[in-house]
Amino acid sequence: MTQTLGFIGLGNMGFPMAANLIAAGFRLRVYNRTPAKAAPLAAQGAFVVSSAQQVADGATVVLSMLADDRALEDVCMPQGSFVEKLGIGGIHISLSTIGPATARRLAEHHKKFGVEYVAAPVFGRPEAAAAKRLWVCTSGSGASKQTIQPILAAIGQGVFDFGEDPGAANVVKISANFLIASAMESLGEVFALSRKNGIEPSAVAEMFGKTLFACPVYQGYGKQIAEKRFEPAGFRLALGLKDINLALQTAQASAVPMPVAGILRDRWISAIAKGRENMDWSAATIGIAEDAGLK
Amino acid sequence: MTQTLGFIGLGNMGFPMAANLIAAGFRLRVYNRTPAKAAPLAAQGAFVVSSAQQVADGATVVLSMLADDRALEDVCMPQGSFVEKLGIGGIHISLSTIGPATARRLAEHHKKFGVEYVAAPVFGRPEAAAAKRLWVCTSGSGASKQTIQPILAAIGQGVFDFGEDPGAANVVKISANFLIASAMESLGEVFALSRKNGIEPSAVAEMFGKTLFACPVYQGYGKQIAEKRFEPAGFRLALGLKDINLALQTAQASAVPMPVAGILRDRWISAIAKGRENMDWSAATIGIAEDAGLK
Amino acid sequence: MTQTLGFIGLGNMGFPMAANLIAAGFRLRVYNRTPAKAAPLAAQGAFVVSSAQQVADGATVVLSMLADDRALEDVCMPQGSFVEKLGIGGIHISLSTIGPATARRLAEHHKKFGVEYVAAPVFGRPEAAAAKRLWVCTSGSGASKQTIQPILAAIGQGVFDFGEDPGAANVVKISANFLIASAMESLGEVFALSRKNGIEPSAVAEMFGKTLFACPVYQGYGKQIAEKRFEPAGFRLALGLKDINLALQTAQASAVPMPVAGILRDRWISAIAKGRENMDWSAATIGIAEDAGLK
Amino acid sequence: MTQTLGFIGLGNMGFPMAANLIAAGFRLRVYNRTPAKAAPLAAQGAFVVSSAQQVADGATVVLSMLADDRALEDVCMPQGSFVEKLGIGGIHISLSTIGPATARRLAEHHKKFGVEYVAAPVFGRPEAAAAKRLWVCTSGSGASKQTIQPILAAIGQGVFDFGEDPGAANVVKISANFLIASAMESLGEVFALSRKNGIEPSAVAEMFGKTLFACPVYQGYGKQIAEKRFEPAGFRLALGLKDINLALQTAQASAVPMPVAGILRDRWISAIAKGRENMDWSAATIGIAEDAGLK
Repeated sequence: MTQTLGFIGLGNMGFPMAANLIAAGFRLRVYNRTPAKAAPLAAQGAFVVSSAQQVADGATVVLSMLADDRALEDVCMPQGSFVEKLGIGGIHISLSTIGPATARRLAEHHKKFGVEYVAAPVFGRPEAAAAKRLWVCTSGSGASKQTIQPILAAIGQGVFDFGEDPGAANVVKISANFLIASAMESLGEVFALSRKNGIEPSAVAEMFGKTLFACPVYQGYGKQIAEKRFEPAGFRLALGLKDINLALQTAQASAVPMPVAGILRDRWISAIAKGRENMDWSAATIGIAEDAGLK
Repeated sequence: MTQTLGFIGLGNMGFPMAANLIAAGFRLRVYNRTPAKAAPLAAQGAFVVSSAQQVADGATVVLSMLADDRALEDVCMPQGSFVEKLGIGGIHISLSTIGPATARRLAEHHKKFGVEYVAAPVFGRPEAAAAKRLWVCTSGSGASKQTIQPILAAIGQGVFDFGEDPGAANVVKISANFLIASAMESLGEVFALSRKNGIEPSAVAEMFGKTLFACPVYQGYGKQIAEKRFEPAGFRLALGLKDINLALQTAQASAVPMPVAGILRDRWISAIAKGRENMDWSAATIGIAEDAGLK
Repeated sequence: MTQTLGFIGLGNMGFPMAANLIAAGFRLRVYNRTPAKAAPLAAQGAFVVSSAQQVADGATVVLSMLADDRALEDVCMPQGSFVEKLGIGGIHISLSTIGPATARRLAEHHKKFGVEYVAAPVFGRPEAAAAKRLWVCTSGSGASKQTIQPILAAIGQGVFDFGEDPGAANVVKISANFLIASAMESLGEVFALSRKNGIEPSAVAEMFGKTLFACPVYQGYGKQIAEKRFEPAGFRLALGLKDINLALQTAQASAVPMPVAGILRDRWISAIAKGRENMDWSAATIGIAEDAGLK
Repeated sequence: MTQTLGFIGLGNMGFPMAANLIAAGFRLRVYNRTPAKAAPLAAQGAFVVSSAQQVADGATVVLSMLADDRALEDVCMPQGSFVEKLGIGGIHISLSTIGPATARRLAEHHKKFGVEYVAAPVFGRPEAAAAKRLWVCTSGSGASKQTIQPILAAIGQGVFDFGEDPGAANVVKISANFLIASAMESLGEVFALSRKNGIEPSAVAEMFGKTLFACPVYQGYGKQIAEKRFEPAGFRLALGLKDINLALQTAQASAVPMPVAGILRDRWISAIAKGRENMDWSAATIGIAEDAGLK
């Protein structure tokens, strides 16, 4: 029998994930704050509802993909939320990138209603989501992590589990974004050095991408930064700062100094001061070149 | 007919490279300041000479692999050096990691004697050198870069050329080491955050090494740092600081601020202050954990 | 006629300020969450009340000196708070070090009830408060800044006004604490350098304190850090981190990169990771010496 | 009887010092690489010579005030230098800001010829030198520090001694310049924050200069930076970078991480990349405002 899933949040990432779930044979009840975005999914067979609560009707599993901690709390915490509606035995697969402290707090809240909160942040940009090539990283205390494998299989290419702590998966996710931003900063510094020495950044990016750093992050961002392709945004710079702040907040809560994160924070803030908040987050590297007197 | 090559510097890197050249059928005249290191090569057929000058006897191509700028200048610049001996039409393949400014100065000096200076720094640790899996990065003004391809093919798995400027290849090499050290610092920060959140760094390293960062640097150093295997040293921490300083000196000469390099410098200096200069350079990350109150 | 003032918050700073107001002839109604602290003031003539609201009975001016933004909001924002009780024509002199955003929000809230919110953060440690040698820095839109001069004169040695924006005075206050922490970090780096070169930090501190840096911050903290007197705490290290975070939050809200503040943040976090949260905030400099391999 | 002194180096600092020595009744033999600068001193009674060696004729004490380590070594180290000419019992008062390692090396060299090397770097800008208001900081192994007091009294307002190590005084001098640059960076960050919050930097500078930071560095540079008066240069930005580098080199030689110095280095490098090398070194703060999107 076809399983019915609820899905909340149809942005750049949520939309293609929901589409993949439909394509994999799931029946979907979808909700988005801006209803227009849901329309194309209706054409693919999704049932569009007009409130977050209603996605839980007839569903035991709800997925959510929202912009930040606040947005997720706003759909989970109010009285009568979809969490309460799910009730005992329900599962909430939380795909958003949020702070581990929020994840832990939400998990406690879900437990009160017998719902399992599975942290399942995803790795990849919208193209990867569309291509079903996301990586998923899970954590949470429930037994449900087994039962949701078919669902996760429909949205990504692999799952890594990080144990019982509902905050763990988000620590890993935040760490990944921090590592990506770090790599971009370091590449940006290298490219400024290259340019000042008459070397084409693209050539440097190509070599590194074929040898020591033959991996998606260095290949993709290396090329993009070397060629200064910062628009359209795959991941908005302002959202990038949100994630760097998540890293710094988690670091402070854990009493971990992270000096590179401090540099990233300033780099991103400067980009925002210069009006680049809607560019791709790799546009933060423009500031590196500017500091070196380059255009 | 078998070509005779001179080879100066038989350290951790030079020795296996020389051995590979012999294995590839070249006749080698080798010199090392500490003669004992040369003995095993003699057994493989190398002719061991007792001064750097003598490697040039009967050779038109000399390779050198030395510890730093000073060591290289000491064999190239004195009156009667192997460079003068090589004379018109001679080629010096300079494999060492040195500053681009030194490379440019040396190239000028070689030109006076009709010798082509080819900058050819290599990427990889001693195991890679032994396995003929180094990457080579060349630059220099001469026509010789074509003729030496068989020689470079005998020591590595591929060559990337960066044009006429004899300093360019070293800018790229210095950049690579900077990127590696940056990646280690960022991984170290992530692992401290993981540990404080109850997550095993090895699990994090494994996931990143299989997904976003599926490349040698993150896989190798990720595992090594997560498992705290800092001895024996593949690349001594004190030499790592030398390379970070090369990056900073080159950055200053080029008027490029490199804040991440500044952090690395302090991290490495602190490791030296704590007596870790002979550990692997990845041991610099111990300080990150200590700053977070971890052992 | 004797003026009656309300006073909320009798900690290390609030207590001596309240005592000075009594000594200056004001009648005081005082409230502190932990009532025991209020007892000695009662002996000096203060009327101790059992809720924050009650300080406003018969008073048109209330002063508050609380630990952080949250504590201040908790007494101002609830229905029936002292702000509402003060009503039209009332004045709230807010002495706490809080974020300018909070100050602006509170000022709006006060306006609804006809109360003027005067930001009046103070500069100085408990000894200075006791000696009536605080500096006060005011801002706010009302006409009341004139009328409260006698009150401010009773607690400090001088007032600087920064205009209409209720957030301005706190920007200045946060900046001052940032400058003090920066000076401590820089002094700590200098002293580590001195020690490693066989020079007594006290001698260095003395010279600077008598010449280029002949001012309270460098003289006081210079001596204290040089002599490693970190206990008892004049200002707790954990509170210092709170203020550094206020600087960073305000900086981000204003899109201003502050790299030195980033360094301070990590330095303070590391001190907390090492269990120094209850020492004086100058104890953050211990980490500088440790990073240099010193005890 | 009038004492004859040699004086080498008549730049912005050396000139007024030499003039003050003449005014104090010393007979001066002066040398400057660019002879024109010496002419006005001749009018005041100095005897202008045409080589550094000749300043030692008939003198037992020579003072020098040169731009950097190299310039000082160039006059001290060659065969037949003024040091050799001074010979046994001679005294060299070295006023320049140089690295302590250089000072130690020079002291050894002087010892060979029986000359005492007294490190005596001075604190203050050209106006202070002219007004005889420099601070002098001495170190060195000889007994001569007593005998030269009248000479030092003629150029400054006070002397602080730091013991036998000829490097010590320069460690202190370098530290002072580092502290000044740090203060400028921190003030620059504060002023950017102020401007973004609608507060006039001059008002902030004034308050701090009258209260917590009532000392020459904060008063002078606070006003200058707030008012953006960066020309003409009192101390050239490029020379400032030289001094920051001296701090970093000394820090590395002593194995002391100095993260704030790292930030300063990048700030100054960026200023040079933007063409500000001939402005006053406080112009480095322009970059702080630019990073915040300010003009």
